[in-house]
Formats: sequence, C-alpha cells, structure tokens
Amino acid sequence: MKDTATLLINCPDRKGIVATVADFLYKHNANILHADEHQDSGKNLFFLRTEWDMSDFALSKKKFEIRFSPIADKFQMKWKVFYSADKPKIAIFVSQEEHCVSDLLYRHKSKELYCGISLIVSNHPNAKALADYHGVPFYEIKVNKVNLIDAEQRILTLLKENNIDLVVLARYMRILSGRFIQAFGNPIINIHHSFLPAFVGAKPYHQAYERGVKVIGATAHYVTADLDQGPIIEQDVLRVSHRDSVEDLAQKGKDMEKIVLSRAVKWHIENRVLTYGNKTVVFD
Amino acid sequence: MKDTATLLINCPDRKGIVATVADFLYKHNANILHADEHQDSGKNLFFLRTEWDMSDFALSKKKFEIRFSPIADKFQMKWKVFYSADKPKIAIFVSQEEHCVSDLLYRHKSKELYCGISLIVSNHPNAKALADYHGVPFYEIKVNKVNLIDAEQRILTLLKENNIDLVVLARYMRILSGRFIQAFGNPIINIHHSFLPAFVGAKPYHQAYERGVKVIGATAHYVTADLDQGPIIEQDVLRVSHRDSVEDLAQKGKDMEKIVLSRAVKWHIENRVLTYGNKTVVFD
Amino acid sequence: MKDTATLLINCPDRKGIVATVADFLYKHNANILHADEHQDSGKNLFFLRTEWDMSDFALSKKKFEIRFSPIADKFQMKWKVFYSADKPKIAIFVSQEEHCVSDLLYRHKSKELYCGISLIVSNHPNAKALADYHGVPFYEIKVNKVNLIDAEQRILTLLKENNIDLVVLARYMRILSGRFIQAFGNPIINIHHSFLPAFVGAKPYHQAYERGVKVIGATAHYVTADLDQGPIIEQDVLRVSHRDSVEDLAQKGKDMEKIVLSRAVKWHIENRVLTYGNKTVVFD
Amino acid sequence: MKDTATLLINCPDRKGIVATVADFLYKHNANILHADEHQDSGKNLFFLRTEWDMSDFALSKKKFEIRFSPIADKFQMKWKVFYSADKPKIAIFVSQEEHCVSDLLYRHKSKELYCGISLIVSNHPNAKALADYHGVPFYEIKVNKVNLIDAEQRILTLLKENNIDLVVLARYMRILSGRFIQAFGNPIINIHHSFLPAFVGAKPYHQAYERGVKVIGATAHYVTADLDQGPIIEQDVLRVSHRDSVEDLAQKGKDMEKIVLSRAVKWHIENRVLTYGNKTVVFD
Repeated sequence: MKDTATLLINCPDRKGIVATVADFLYKHNANILHADEHQDSGKNLFFLRTEWDMSDFALSKKKFEIRFSPIADKFQMKWKVFYSADKPKIAIFVSQEEHCVSDLLYRHKSKELYCGISLIVSNHPNAKALADYHGVPFYEIKVNKVNLIDAEQRILTLLKENNIDLVVLARYMRILSGRFIQAFGNPIINIHHSFLPAFVGAKPYHQAYERGVKVIGATAHYVTADLDQGPIIEQDVLRVSHRDSVEDLAQKGKDMEKIVLSRAVKWHIENRVLTYGNKTVVFD
Repeated sequence: MKDTATLLINCPDRKGIVATVADFLYKHNANILHADEHQDSGKNLFFLRTEWDMSDFALSKKKFEIRFSPIADKFQMKWKVFYSADKPKIAIFVSQEEHCVSDLLYRHKSKELYCGISLIVSNHPNAKALADYHGVPFYEIKVNKVNLIDAEQRILTLLKENNIDLVVLARYMRILSGRFIQAFGNPIINIHHSFLPAFVGAKPYHQAYERGVKVIGATAHYVTADLDQGPIIEQDVLRVSHRDSVEDLAQKGKDMEKIVLSRAVKWHIENRVLTYGNKTVVFD
Repeated sequence: MKDTATLLINCPDRKGIVATVADFLYKHNANILHADEHQDSGKNLFFLRTEWDMSDFALSKKKFEIRFSPIADKFQMKWKVFYSADKPKIAIFVSQEEHCVSDLLYRHKSKELYCGISLIVSNHPNAKALADYHGVPFYEIKVNKVNLIDAEQRILTLLKENNIDLVVLARYMRILSGRFIQAFGNPIINIHHSFLPAFVGAKPYHQAYERGVKVIGATAHYVTADLDQGPIIEQDVLRVSHRDSVEDLAQKGKDMEKIVLSRAVKWHIENRVLTYGNKTVVFD
Repeated sequence: MKDTATLLINCPDRKGIVATVADFLYKHNANILHADEHQDSGKNLFFLRTEWDMSDFALSKKKFEIRFSPIADKFQMKWKVFYSADKPKIAIFVSQEEHCVSDLLYRHKSKELYCGISLIVSNHPNAKALADYHGVPFYEIKVNKVNLIDAEQRILTLLKENNIDLVVLARYMRILSGRFIQAFGNPIINIHHSFLPAFVGAKPYHQAYERGVKVIGATAHYVTADLDQGPIIEQDVLRVSHRDSVEDLAQKGKDMEKIVLSRAVKWHIENRVLTYGNKTVVFD
C-alpha cells in the first residue's frame, strides 16, 4: 500500500481550474497516480479527484492547507484532502441477516477493504460469534419504540468514543431517527434490497414478487432523513422469472446485496464518491 | 418452419394433469417438440405449454376441440390451442422515434418474427418512408384531446378490417383510452422506457437522471386501463454513470428498448406468455 | 425442507416417454413439485428431471427400483433417483486463496447449500482457522512431484472413509492426476478463473490482461483427465477496462468465482445437472 | 453539435505533463469540455484525451501544430488532434447477413453516428436495396481466390478515391490480405461473433455449441495481419443454455454483434480509442 494523498474538489466550472491545480501539485513535486474530473454542464459544476504519491511530495499536511487555501478561495472550491495513512474507522450495524456483515468482514480480513472495523452494533445476538471470530467488539443494543432515544444515545456515544468516520448499515432493519443522523454527522451507507426508487420501504422482495418484475435489484445509498431517498452510490440487478418464489428472490438477492454494498463501501473509503444535490459522482 | 400446434393451459393444480394431457397427445400420435410447466404453489395454480409437430398428428382443429373439451372441463382448465399455420396479424403504432418500429420491421424482414405486419399507425408522418420501404400500409392519424373519440374509432375500424391479433406500441406517445382497449379486445404490448414500477408516466429518463440512478431500464408490458400497470412481459437494464446526461440516457436506452420490445413480441407470437392476476408466466 | 425424490432420465427420444413416466408417478400418488424436460433433436436425446413430494408417495426406495426398471428398460433410459433425505457429502479442496471456501462454508451455514461438508483438504495451513470456526475437519496434505502418489492416496482414503459424494476444488492449485480422478469415481467440480475455453491453464488473469480483453469470466466445470476441458456447468463474466491492472482483475474476479462455483455446487447437489458427451443440461 | 477539437496523447509518463498541457490550452483560451487520462504504470506510459470548444479558441489548425510541437517534442509525445468539423468518412463491407450494416445505417440516419458513410462494398447483391434506401453507393465486388489481387485493388482504388478514413467489416466474410491492410493504411474495425480469444476463426457459434458454453460473446477489434488477433475495442456477452441450438445462438448473437460493433465504431469516430502494443485504451 503506497502512502498517498487524495484531493477532492467541487466548484463552479470555469477556465483554468485544471491548469492551476496541476501546476500547484507539479511545483510541489507531486507524483500524480490518478486524476479524474467531471463537469455537470447543466448545473455549471466541476468535480476533480486526484491522488498522488506522498514520498517525494514537498508539503506537510499543515502546509498543504495553508498553501492551497488561496487557490481554493479563488475558485470557490469545496475541497477535502485525505491521507492514506489515516485509515477510516468503520462501525457496522446489522440485524438478523448476516450475509452482508460476513462479507464485509471477509473483505476486510483479506485486505480488500483498507479501513479499520472498530465495532459492530446489532439489535440481535446472532452476529456475535462472527464478530468474535474476526476479533471485532460486538454490542447488542435492542432498539424499540419505547427506548429509542436512550438506545440511539448509547450508540452515538460508542461512535464518538471510537471516532467512527463511517457507519455501514449491513441489513440493519431499524430506521435511524433524523436526530441520530444529524448528531452523528458523518456519512452512513445503507443497502436497500430493491432497485430504488422502485419498492421503497418494507419488504421490497414481496413487493417485487407481487408486481411480477423480471429483474430485481439492490441499491447502496447514503442515508438522509428521508427514508430510502438519499444519494445513490451503486446499484445492480439480476434476472428472475415466474419460477422464483419470494423466498427465491430473497435468496438470490443476497449475493447482489453483498456485492453492491461492498463496492459502495470500498469506493467511499477510497474517496471516490462526491455528493452534490441528491446525486453522486463516483470516480471508479 | 415446421407445422406445429401449441397448447396453453392454466388451471387449479392437482394430481394427474400432466399424465392426462401427455396421454391424450400420445394417443393421437403427437410428436412433442417442447413442453414446459409451472406451478404457483401459493395460488395453487398450474400452467402448461406444449408444442407438437402436426405432421403425424391424428386430430383436425375441429376434432381437437371436441375431444379435448372433456379433459379441460374435468380439470377446470382455461386453455387455448394455436396453430403455426395461422400467423398472427400485427399492427404497430408509433410516434416520432423510429428506433423500435425500424427494429421490428427489420426482424420481420429477416424472418426472426414469424407474423404478418398488416399496418402501421402514427400520429406523425416520419415513419412513412420506412413503412414504404418495407411495403407496409401506413396510416397517419392525428390524435388529440378534441378528436380523441373519432380518431380512436378510425383506428379501431382499421384494426377490425384487418383482423389484427396484436397491437404493438413501439414508442407511441399517446395514451389509449380505456374504451379503446376494451373495444379492441385483443392484446396490446407497450414498451415503457424505464424499469417499471420506477419512473411511471412521462419523461422517465428525466426522472432517472434527477434521481441519480446508476442503472436504467426498459419494460415491455401488456396494456391495461391503468397506465404503466399492466402485466410485465420482459425487462432489461444497463449501467449508466454521472457522466451520462439526460440525452445520453435516452440515446443508450434506445438499444435496450428495441431489444426488450422485440423479445416480448417474439415470445407473445410464439405463444410463450400466459397472464394471470397482474403477472406473466414466460416459457422462454 | 420438504421430503422429496428427484428422478433424472437421459434416453433416446421417442413418443410416449412423458406419458408413461407421468402415468407411473400419478398411479403411485406422487405429488409432482417440479418437472422439466429437454430434447437434443440433433442427437435425438431426451432428458427429464422431475421432483415429487414423498409424503403421499406409495413406493419405498426399493419398490421404486423394482417397479420402474421395466419402464427404464423399455425406453433404454439411463436414470437415477435421489432422495432429499440422503444429503450429499462434500469435501472441499483449497490452496492459499480462501474466498471460495469461505463463501461455500457461509452458504452451508446459512442453509443455502443443502449438503454435508465433511472435510477440507489443503496444501497450505491458511484455511485451518476458518475450518475450525465452522467446525469442519481440516487436513493439511502437502502435494508435490515427489510425494504425488502417496499424497493422493492419503486423500483418496479420506474421501472413501467419509463416503464423499462430491469433491469441490475451491481454488485448489494442484492438478489432480488421472489416476486420482478415476479412483475417486464420483464427480469433482472445479472453478477456473477464466471464461473457458479462453485462457486455459495457469495464470488466466495474466493472460486476459495481456490480450487486453474487455470482459473477464469464470467457469465451473466437472473435472476430467483433460485439464480445463470437462463439461461446463456454469459461467459468468464481468466488464473490465484499460484501468484494471492484473491485480484488479484478480480482485474483481473473486466475486465472480465465488458466485459461479456456488451456483454450480448448488445445482449439482439439487440434482439439476445432467451430463452427456462433454456438455451439461442444467435444469435451473 | 458543437464545434470542438480533440487531442490524443500517448507518451512516457513523467511529472508535469498535465500541468503543461492544461496550461497551454488555458493560455489559448480553450474551454475544456472533457478530459480523461490513464497511466500504464507497468509500461510507464501516459495517455491523455482532452476535448475543447473551438468557439473561443485562439489557435488555428496550423498555429496549433506550430505552437504545440515543442511541448510534444519535450515529452516525446505521439499525438494527434481531431477537429469535429472534419467528419470521418466510412466504408462498410458486408456479405450476406445484413443485421450489422442495417444497424449502422439506421444509427447514421438517426444522427447517433457522427460521420459520413461514403460507400458499401459487398461480395453479394443482397444489401443493395438497403443501400439504395439510405442513398449510399453500393459496389458488388466478388472476391475469390482467383481474382483476389485484382478485386482488392479495385476496392483499394474506391477507398482512395473517396478518402476513406475507416473501413468497418460488418460481418464481411472474406479475409482481407495483409497486402490490402497495409496498402489501405487507415484503421479497419471488424466484428467477430465470439468472445475472443475463445473460438478464433470460422463458425464460432458452432464451436461454442460444441464446447457447451453457458455464455456467448462478440468482439469488435482492429484488424491486423494476424486473423482475429488485433487490439480489442469492445466485447459483450449474453447467457445461453442447453435449450439453445446453433441456430438460436446465431439468432441471439445478432443483437449483441450489432451493439458491440456500433459501440466500437462510435468510440472510434469520437476519437476515444488509443492503441498501444496490442491493446486499447477506451475513454468512454
């Protein structure tokens, strides 16, 4: 794993942005590894992702901040720089179905996901054995209508104490309150087991079966206060037929859910996803 | 092209159906070419499609009707038999976009679609040159709110005069009235340019763009009085990204629309599609 | 899980097979759950798979054998009947890469794979922790050119002692000798990490990278004495681009390998796969 | 259609390329519409594609050449600039199967392909009616072993007289001689009806059927003197099963061939394809 920095920029589109940024990095001896850009001409927005090797780079974190700020101001940039040395810390939330959490833990163990997995939260005891096998602290926290505020507060405290950068809802079947989402403040990624916006809400495979669709899907998206309405990061689909029962859809769907969620998490922790409005730019 | 008959059956599921039907066909010397069956165990329904070579077969159309009826009654079958000698007659409706009609005409010409294409109806003059090239009568019939009843009546008369078995809406941008659908009585297949039930109604590619989906789709379905709610015959999808504008979605979607519609039409005219409730069984 | 029987038939095609078999099952009060058939008209072969509920069925295993044999003889059938009560016993062979074995064990644990996993054989120690977590006996048996005959004999003994019905090569990087394959006698399924017949042999992702393909694949096939030439059960593919390094291909390919192998194993243990010549019929 | 220029660069990778090129374009007032880059770190190569609006651009074609040359020399660039005002001129070669040529002509007519189609060459008379309908000159030129040199010379003369930039082999079933390929000098794109490198040579669908594959493919590639070995531009695949006869494979494959070929042609004429070694970079 190379020691790299990744710069994400989102700003109004105008001439000279690339020339200026490229010149800045060149002058400070950055060895560019990847660069990708996008223009939304309808909204006149410009997006840039560039990653460089830190080994020859002339600027410390602090100096980068100081030297790059004037450029950012000139072009009205929203920007962030991520250093690979600072691995993001993740918390996974799960309910009874273990296929997604099991998959994420396996990918972490096999070094596909470059992050820390600090803890697992569940409203069921099932996943404890799996968490133990992977050596990840497991917290069973029952959430229901009565204890909602207290339970969410307990979870929030855990997240804060562990400096969690990202929460992944790996088939977590409780709806997080708007209060929780706001209080946490960092991104939350959810896997919804349908091709959104089709089949919003509960029991999407039942809905899909009733409608008689020939293709089912899964959607990984950022969580916002509006249920299943947040920016979509990744989707995928698979063909089904009249031969598939609801149970078949649920079974077949699991493979898709795992893969879609893991892609979204991977892209997020590699700083490939920018959000604007209710959409994402994914530099894959 | 072999001279064949195809029997479609839909009835309550109980023991002995296959044994009885297979025995009936065997006794009358049918050489079975294909057989496919399906059970919807939730609704306790049984579906059968069987196709046989007519060359050695012992029963005329009329005699089949007489001899098979007692079996059908015993098992409470809804059934139909189709003879390949009776090619279905199709009418295509189209508006300005010609990609679907062009594709259907090409497939007909190259003998992929085994049917007659009797006429094309459009509310625009565009497709006339194409219709002429393929030697298919073309009727430009403007439909608007004012003349709706008269215009639909004119179309209905054309369909009746030509004994049309199937209407294909090949990107026909007018909504047919419930009155028209009922008066026609035979099936109507529509191509909707989204993955239904997502993005029902007008401008689905615009809706898809606004929602920021990563996959777009197309859906071929039978038309009912409820807009975009009829039984789905076929769907397919393709990946898109933040780089695709609305125009890109529309352009890329065309290939998918053509293929999905042509599959649905092909399966329909090969008598592979059974509908029940608001769903289809497709023996592909 | 219902208590069922599945009959697989492969015989020369002629009139009356379905009528005879359906009548036989009906007379002995079988409640048919699924039936599927196929004709290879070029080779004049007929294939049938039918599964029925054992609860009302009138024949014991032994009586079925006796009563069905005359029918089988009359139609020159190769046939086999499988009872769900007799779960197949599987041995998994693995080398250093654990993604496939991990996936199979997870699917077994979550009851997607209805079989016993009796043991794991490996030429490396890696997978031991995983085997322990799942409570499956693990045998590390080094195989090399020098000890090949002895090592294979040790493995064969293990397979025989455990009455193994199926060996699954889950990225096992040793080539089994023809002697071993023959001595074992039961089916062996391998996952090859390319779209066969492209990139036969070693390092298929390197071969794919060198050729500059835009799609990579994985193939699950039965093992025969000819390397990578056995009957194909399942294949799948995924798109790649110039941006993918060899390492990216290997990483992305893992998801595909897991899914393709698990589908093939599932279909095999559900008795959905018939082989003839060097091909398979898969009743999915 | 905007009036644009597209610059393609291929050079050894080193620091400062992007900064230098971006600065050059910025100084001459280019409004960048798209930019994409790629590094092959194994071979230490850098690839760039950038497209800008010509409306405000300060340099004429001639001046661009003069001013950019020193930069190109400094970085040892292979480079080319394409102006959208200079539409590429295409010749299509076809044999009996018309699905690909029909598709290309339709896409050209509907303005999806931004090019001129100057002429069609065929060794059969079939496609003449289609060519006439689209108003494209049609040349029936029989090629066989006896007249090969003369026939190819006749075709070459046609290509030269019409200043053809690209030849598209749209299921043209004759092998072009190495002499012809060299004498023409400009790119030739072929559609091969298999997933190369599987099933090189004649009758790939027969080969696929015999091998019992579960997925078939199509490959668009640049033609070189080595049959079916040139750089791959695009590939796609579709699932098949034991139910598909060779004829079914050929029929189903047509849709794939059309789409794969049209994508490759579109990307080529939009200057999105760079070749190096025997591979392509496709900036899609």
